Amino acid sequence: MARDNGDGLAAIAGRIGVLGSVALNIVALAIYLRGRAAAEKQASKKVKKAAAVAPSSGKPPVACDSVINLDHGDPTMFETFWRGPIGESATLVIPGYQTMSYFSDVGNLCWFLEPGFEREVRRLHRLVGNAAIEGYHVLVGTGSSQLFQAALYALAPPTADAPVSVVSTTPFYSMYPPLTDFLNSRLYRWAGDANAFDGDDYIEVICSPSNPDGSIREAVLKSKSGKDIHDLAYYWPQYTPITRMLAHDIMLFTVSKCTGHAGTRIGWALVKDKEVAQKMSKFMEQSTIGVSKDAQLRAAKVLGAVTDGYEHQLATAAGGDANLLFHYARQKMAQRWRALRAAVAASGIFSLPDEVAGFCAFTKDTVTSNPAFAWLRCQKQEVEDLESFLRANKIITRSGTKFGADQKVVRISMVDTDEAFGIFVNRLAAIK
Amino acid sequence: MARDNGDGLAAIAGRIGVLGSVALNIVALAIYLRGRAAAEKQASKKVKKAAAVAPSSGKPPVACDSVINLDHGDPTMFETFWRGPIGESATLVIPGYQTMSYFSDVGNLCWFLEPGFEREVRRLHRLVGNAAIEGYHVLVGTGSSQLFQAALYALAPPTADAPVSVVSTTPFYSMYPPLTDFLNSRLYRWAGDANAFDGDDYIEVICSPSNPDGSIREAVLKSKSGKDIHDLAYYWPQYTPITRMLAHDIMLFTVSKCTGHAGTRIGWALVKDKEVAQKMSKFMEQSTIGVSKDAQLRAAKVLGAVTDGYEHQLATAAGGDANLLFHYARQKMAQRWRALRAAVAASGIFSLPDEVAGFCAFTKDTVTSNPAFAWLRCQKQEVEDLESFLRANKIITRSGTKFGADQKVVRISMVDTDEAFGIFVNRLAAIK
Repeated sequence: MARDNGDGLAAIAGRIGVLGSVALNIVALAIYLRGRAAAEKQASKKVKKAAAVAPSSGKPPVACDSVINLDHGDPTMFETFWRGPIGESATLVIPGYQTMSYFSDVGNLCWFLEPGFEREVRRLHRLVGNAAIEGYHVLVGTGSSQLFQAALYALAPPTADAPVSVVSTTPFYSMYPPLTDFLNSRLYRWAGDANAFDGDDYIEVICSPSNPDGSIREAVLKSKSGKDIHDLAYYWPQYTPITRMLAHDIMLFTVSKCTGHAGTRIGWALVKDKEVAQKMSKFMEQSTIGVSKDAQLRAAKVLGAVTDGYEHQLATAAGGDANLLFHYARQKMAQRWRALRAAVAASGIFSLPDEVAGFCAFTKDTVTSNPAFAWLRCQKQEVEDLESFLRANKIITRSGTKFGADQKVVRISMVDTDEAFGIFVNRLAAIK
Repeated sequence: MARDNGDGLAAIAGRIGVLGSVALNIVALAIYLRGRAAAEKQASKKVKKAAAVAPSSGKPPVACDSVINLDHGDPTMFETFWRGPIGESATLVIPGYQTMSYFSDVGNLCWFLEPGFEREVRRLHRLVGNAAIEGYHVLVGTGSSQLFQAALYALAPPTADAPVSVVSTTPFYSMYPPLTDFLNSRLYRWAGDANAFDGDDYIEVICSPSNPDGSIREAVLKSKSGKDIHDLAYYWPQYTPITRMLAHDIMLFTVSKCTGHAGTRIGWALVKDKEVAQKMSKFMEQSTIGVSKDAQLRAAKVLGAVTDGYEHQLATAAGGDANLLFHYARQKMAQRWRALRAAVAASGIFSLPDEVAGFCAFTKDTVTSNPAFAWLRCQKQEVEDLESFLRANKIITRSGTKFGADQKVVRISMVDTDEAFGIFVNRLAAIK
């Protein structure tokens, strides 16, 4: 409605010139500007109305004496970055008539995959170099936990007499057992620690860097009939040096841990074998008739903004890391790990896994890893149940028992808000 | 950046008044307007960049000789409505930093439910009067098919010796059997036609109006230990008269069939019992760690626009149905049904279910129902497999066998694009 080009300007300037008097000019100007202001006000109202979706703000804010909940890896740490310039370029607009059809690409084996999302996934991997994409099928899931289940469904032999065993090295991600068993399927069942497994038929899940302890993992079982799923949710430069381009048969990623948009619920899988990809796609079709297009467009926008930030930096050779997500987040994570190690030293009753360093092929420097979770152990004999002990100190964590480990260790999220993290480290340092 | 209030206007008018010459005024005006135009151009560029998400367009467009695919109920018919004024008010803007947390409302038993979405769900039911909301829990799912599985999970006795039987009156929705059985769960199993079931322990699914045949259904089984799930995806005024406000224990709805936004993958459940609601919520938590916030915001925006359209009409008493989704869509559906019945009459070898009429408490008039699917039967003896017969005529439909019925009947979507529907009825009329 508001004119945004020179034509309007020339017409008005001409008209005012003809009027020939200061008074009249000012009247005309006032009328013109008033009309313009009104039009702009209305346009602005429209945008405001369009933007006036009141989304939830996540967990409530914390104060000095709050219970600090670091049970989930809720990646709200990234919000500050997304309030900056890159975040502005990632604003998504969806008109009322868009994304109505079930179908995204009827010619793709994953018919509900938005082509724009696939493009941004491939662009980002090409930038970071953490995973091979040539010759891989890209699948989208409602978070990587849906893709994990899709992989179990695709890899389990459908006609076996007994469910196939699903295993992972201890400590394993606490959600693997319930994700495998909650529907009591005859196709697969959770069988615990991969190191304790004896047999040829299995599905081994390898989470690397490992949730909960940040270690770099490889498959421990080797058999011709065994299958692997590589959960690479944390294989991004802010958490660990990118030492090589991985090229496993099934690789799972998620927007949650890469950019921090957990609420969007979008994950993706890179899958080598066509038949496996087809079966995984079939799982999403049956489970949820595909994946939200709006969520995919959002994820595409966010991933695209990350890659754009790096490409723009390369093109302009401008300094500063404010537009570079991985650099920004790595610095932030490194600060937090320093603060945590200082707090652990101050307290004297805890220990953490040793720091690990490596050469990062993406940032071209040697860096330490900064895992998304701290795997905190208590050295004090009297403390038998560390989760309960910390809970009494108003710190909520997840017990080692849920990861196949013991009660004297807990998993703590390192990616929560600055406020929550600050209170947590202060509180931890004071525990003697 | 562009000023949108009277302050700027007054300041400029004042400054120009001081200048005291026509020439200077015009120079000042030109400079001011040029600056303004540049600022606006930049703002407009930003919005364009933000809007420049290229979503998929769904199924490819059709031509006269195309294969017409009416297998899925892809509700692209509604797109024309959403390209109008209501669609404009439904534009969604999501800034880069929003919807990052997993959590929407930590105090709600459904902690991933966006409060804005719940509010719009309740508002819409209050408007239409099709389902009771007082005393009900609202749950959100990735489409109603996820909620269907959540209901099975919540209702199945976890410690039973054998899976509970899931039944539905024939013809039943073709997705119920695979949704129940695809993971080969020990909790529940598909057991076919409810009328043929003998026993006290079961889950009966009642889809009303029925997909595929549009009939109004009630539960056929009655036992103290039996459980019901009411799938009310089509209980909206465009498909059937709203004869009463339903108040069943579990009622499932979906944005797909209500507004046509299938690609958004959002459904909701109204659940009376708290414990059942908790278990259903737990299902979504385990299956997909909640439901995309972006998709929920989109659904909230769209549902809100529908209710706003009606409320605005009531407030202004302005005529015309262009802003009233249900009125618009009912008229459209009625036209299509007339065209289909004419084509069936012209052909002479098909039959359809009888037309059913009733008083609609929402629109306050007596209307015929306009089901979202046509349940088309072939009367010609030689045609044994109607799906194959129509496929040979380049019309893709879904065979009755998938709905527990015979081969001489098929389900046909009535909610596809105008183009596809037009070619379909012409082609059908010509089949002798």
